Amino acid sequence: MKPTEQLLTDILEEVRPLIGKGKVADYIPALAKVSNQKLAMAVYTNDGEVIKSGDADEAFSIQSISKALSLTLAMVLYKPEEIWDRVGKEPSGQAFNSMIQLEMEQGIPRNPFINAGAIVVADLLSSRLSAPRQRLLEFARQLSGDTHIVYDKVVAASEMMHSDRNAAIAYLMRAFGNFDNDVIPVLNNYFHACALKMSCVDLAKTFSYLANKGVSVQTGKQIVTPTQTKQLNALLATCGLYDGAGEFAYRVGMPGKSGVGGGIIAIVPGEMTIAVWSPELDPSGNSLAGTQALELFSEKIGRSIF
Amino acid sequence: MKPTEQLLTDILEEVRPLIGKGKVADYIPALAKVSNQKLAMAVYTNDGEVIKSGDADEAFSIQSISKALSLTLAMVLYKPEEIWDRVGKEPSGQAFNSMIQLEMEQGIPRNPFINAGAIVVADLLSSRLSAPRQRLLEFARQLSGDTHIVYDKVVAASEMMHSDRNAAIAYLMRAFGNFDNDVIPVLNNYFHACALKMSCVDLAKTFSYLANKGVSVQTGKQIVTPTQTKQLNALLATCGLYDGAGEFAYRVGMPGKSGVGGGIIAIVPGEMTIAVWSPELDPSGNSLAGTQALELFSEKIGRSIF
Amino acid sequence: MKPTEQLLTDILEEVRPLIGKGKVADYIPALAKVSNQKLAMAVYTNDGEVIKSGDADEAFSIQSISKALSLTLAMVLYKPEEIWDRVGKEPSGQAFNSMIQLEMEQGIPRNPFINAGAIVVADLLSSRLSAPRQRLLEFARQLSGDTHIVYDKVVAASEMMHSDRNAAIAYLMRAFGNFDNDVIPVLNNYFHACALKMSCVDLAKTFSYLANKGVSVQTGKQIVTPTQTKQLNALLATCGLYDGAGEFAYRVGMPGKSGVGGGIIAIVPGEMTIAVWSPELDPSGNSLAGTQALELFSEKIGRSIF
Amino acid sequence: MKPTEQLLTDILEEVRPLIGKGKVADYIPALAKVSNQKLAMAVYTNDGEVIKSGDADEAFSIQSISKALSLTLAMVLYKPEEIWDRVGKEPSGQAFNSMIQLEMEQGIPRNPFINAGAIVVADLLSSRLSAPRQRLLEFARQLSGDTHIVYDKVVAASEMMHSDRNAAIAYLMRAFGNFDNDVIPVLNNYFHACALKMSCVDLAKTFSYLANKGVSVQTGKQIVTPTQTKQLNALLATCGLYDGAGEFAYRVGMPGKSGVGGGIIAIVPGEMTIAVWSPELDPSGNSLAGTQALELFSEKIGRSIF
Repeated sequence: MKPTEQLLTDILEEVRPLIGKGKVADYIPALAKVSNQKLAMAVYTNDGEVIKSGDADEAFSIQSISKALSLTLAMVLYKPEEIWDRVGKEPSGQAFNSMIQLEMEQGIPRNPFINAGAIVVADLLSSRLSAPRQRLLEFARQLSGDTHIVYDKVVAASEMMHSDRNAAIAYLMRAFGNFDNDVIPVLNNYFHACALKMSCVDLAKTFSYLANKGVSVQTGKQIVTPTQTKQLNALLATCGLYDGAGEFAYRVGMPGKSGVGGGIIAIVPGEMTIAVWSPELDPSGNSLAGTQALELFSEKIGRSIF
Repeated sequence: MKPTEQLLTDILEEVRPLIGKGKVADYIPALAKVSNQKLAMAVYTNDGEVIKSGDADEAFSIQSISKALSLTLAMVLYKPEEIWDRVGKEPSGQAFNSMIQLEMEQGIPRNPFINAGAIVVADLLSSRLSAPRQRLLEFARQLSGDTHIVYDKVVAASEMMHSDRNAAIAYLMRAFGNFDNDVIPVLNNYFHACALKMSCVDLAKTFSYLANKGVSVQTGKQIVTPTQTKQLNALLATCGLYDGAGEFAYRVGMPGKSGVGGGIIAIVPGEMTIAVWSPELDPSGNSLAGTQALELFSEKIGRSIF
Repeated sequence: MKPTEQLLTDILEEVRPLIGKGKVADYIPALAKVSNQKLAMAVYTNDGEVIKSGDADEAFSIQSISKALSLTLAMVLYKPEEIWDRVGKEPSGQAFNSMIQLEMEQGIPRNPFINAGAIVVADLLSSRLSAPRQRLLEFARQLSGDTHIVYDKVVAASEMMHSDRNAAIAYLMRAFGNFDNDVIPVLNNYFHACALKMSCVDLAKTFSYLANKGVSVQTGKQIVTPTQTKQLNALLATCGLYDGAGEFAYRVGMPGKSGVGGGIIAIVPGEMTIAVWSPELDPSGNSLAGTQALELFSEKIGRSIF
Repeated sequence: MKPTEQLLTDILEEVRPLIGKGKVADYIPALAKVSNQKLAMAVYTNDGEVIKSGDADEAFSIQSISKALSLTLAMVLYKPEEIWDRVGKEPSGQAFNSMIQLEMEQGIPRNPFINAGAIVVADLLSSRLSAPRQRLLEFARQLSGDTHIVYDKVVAASEMMHSDRNAAIAYLMRAFGNFDNDVIPVLNNYFHACALKMSCVDLAKTFSYLANKGVSVQTGKQIVTPTQTKQLNALLATCGLYDGAGEFAYRVGMPGKSGVGGGIIAIVPGEMTIAVWSPELDPSGNSLAGTQALELFSEKIGRSIF
């Protein structure tokens, strides 16, 4: 079955009753004040067709979804061993910001999608780029074709004021020799990446290279190699949803990446990229209605990687 | 590209130089004495074609590969919640027999493919089946079409003599109320499952339902539903290779399950099931040459789930 | 100031209002049914004087206090290295029955007073004594001069029925090569030791050697050397009160050993042995009113080791 | 037996062969370059007599011994609950700078003598004192009667350059709401305290209040109450020697505090304070020859708290 606007609308109506049963992220005020009623879904096919429903053109804080973008940029800039000597490829089996595992494993984060790993990626980008923040923004604008994408400065500043645990993570990695730059500027870059404001349509377009063997459907450019694409999808499938990757694979069966802003992207390799948005989260920190929407989508169109 | 016997032979020759660089499992004598020179690969397509090379008809100890078979049987016998209330679906992020996580998570194993989880599955089978050991053997014989499959009694007895850690795991789960039967008989069943002797051809045929929406290609029977098939593949993809699932996904990109006997099965949903065997293991406990053979196979035939 | 019966009575009245604010151990029925109103204190001076108040002649389940007796017996039977190669001398910093530390530290328990350590001691006694259970009983009878001391068979049997966690501990140590005998008989001995029924007077007399350079005041016999006495007291002071050793030292300032039956023994080296009993426990598992009674006693007589 | 200069000299000769069998702390160059041949012992009796031998007048980096001084100052300035709500009184059972326990226990350090706890104490001092660094220096000068005591600025600066792990600890405590001031200035104060240069004679005099019910023998002033003195000694006895407190109690049997500079202080309550110095450390981070000297001293004069 092919996805249609009606299908997306039906799915959103079916999951809307979940609103009120999750919890909007409230560790910073700028996220807490987002309306829990927002609900959106967008599909971008490898043919370049956009199918959308709900608040799919409204920009929101993409938060950890940015980790997939930052890792892609790092994979463009660095040789594999320069990345994978400093961060692992295995699921963490622990809360996404735990320091226990980081200490036990000598400052090498489990994967690039837990906070520690994304901070290492931010450190890598800081080492090689003269203006990493500007570069990442341009990368997002180019891939989405949306030149109005901006950083939400209030969110970035607010994250910075609640950055003690991430500072602890960065300093611990420094103590193990796995952090090269000054902690504060790197964290600032990291929080800016999390504060990117993008819509579901933006996101689906941006990550289209993951569904298309590394070629951006939007720009037609080869962003990463086919092998790197497969690697990125493998990492997303095993590590992309915090401590809920197994459950997501079991229910949805697509590589994906979530953010505490309530967005999730998911990939059907060879076919399409999907983005959903619903701000309320489940206990693992993934969008409650968003996950359910993806599960329904997977069932209804009969697609999954498994 | 379609797999051929020549392709498999080429791959085995390409990986053969890895022999000598891994380590045959030696925690029990019966495994330690297996020749490290063994090398085999078999493909079973959804059309019912067998393609094989090397020692593909020689039976070996399938060890943890049996966990996928036991879980399948449990999914046939139990409602989902009866299983998933007692065992999780998330990667463990720790060594496959660690008790630390089990204690922290109150006796609920992370997933059915670490030892603790497989022991819970064995406990479930013991509760519902009058002769669980016989039933599993019949299940394997039926799915493979090979009526000569047996338990290696020497291996099972030897495992039982080195079962202290698994006994500790079972007793700890009992202390948390997550174990219903007597420990020793359940462990005995568990070790017998691990001691199944099957060839690569047997294995590829046995697990054909995972590539074929739940229908065994060998028997034509529906073993599990299409949804259960997707769920099983999702669990294999995120948890099937001990603490090397992420690396395996990154390199091979297929759902799989390994055993310390050196076997690995891998699934290309909709197309085929693959089994490899090479007794030497990498540090994660997965077949060294076997993993490499699957990576090459994935590259050469251009198939992966990502 | 010298202790008198009046002093003990005054102290018991002062702490009596704490009854109702703790919690009687209820993990086995035989302990749960003990009246929470019981309150007792006994002092045995190095001159052989008994001073007592409350229910000081009523026998109760000494539980973990037996660990000090078992260790003493092991130190009589074994060379130091035969003991200390198998069990440490450091506080555990974790709940008394946690397996996390035991796994991290390769099956070597932190000290002989956590469960794992006491089970190693029980294993040692089982290896060298033909009738370890009988020998320990005789040891208690001889040291206390009370020939009526018995094992509470109901308590021992009840513990055995709730022994899953301790079985897990023993099997894990076996997996690390730190357990020599069959698990079940050793646990049975261990639970019998815990099920010794002794009164405060019995206990104060029994442990008088710890206050008297190794010589039992009751029997006049040298039980352990002066150096061993100092070592035993050092272990009691740093590890004798589960995860409340620091707090106990801070408040009471005496080497001591508690049991979940609500008993505590404490030592004033060179002067006297004290035993208290009140069944309700604080969150660390130590007698709530008993600890307070010892703190008052320490203040009023102006004695502590610090 | 009373201590004499000859006794100390004999003891130093007896332990001198241990030199070469330990390891001088080398995590900062300023400590690594200290001669491993240094050996010193000083006793300060409650009568005001100084007995000394070896390099007892040579100042060295007292490192963690300063934690006992800082805690004393905090106990003078704060009510008990203001301190003990923020730091525990229990041994840690883990390496002195581990973050695992700190994370598990929600940012409350186990005791004031592990790094995390001492950093909390430094945070407390920073909150209440206008010039905490100057105040601590004056405190040491006053208690020792040695007005030439200084901070080793090279050591303090060098520690600050290797402070990543301690910064991680401080930030993690901030994330849990258990740190009030800016991280860097507090760490700077903490490292200055560690960089105090004092001799064995200075140290024995400085801590004389711990042997004399809170009254400094040197100044005749009441520094802390008798109860606080008992509490400080209890904390030293259970937590003063990193992860070697149990072993130290077992062998030496005195409250004590060690530093990675190779110094140790020990207390015989009611009688004397002892300081030793030998730069080479054992695997627990305590002076190898120094511990042995204290054990011999304890045996020869027949004193211990047990």
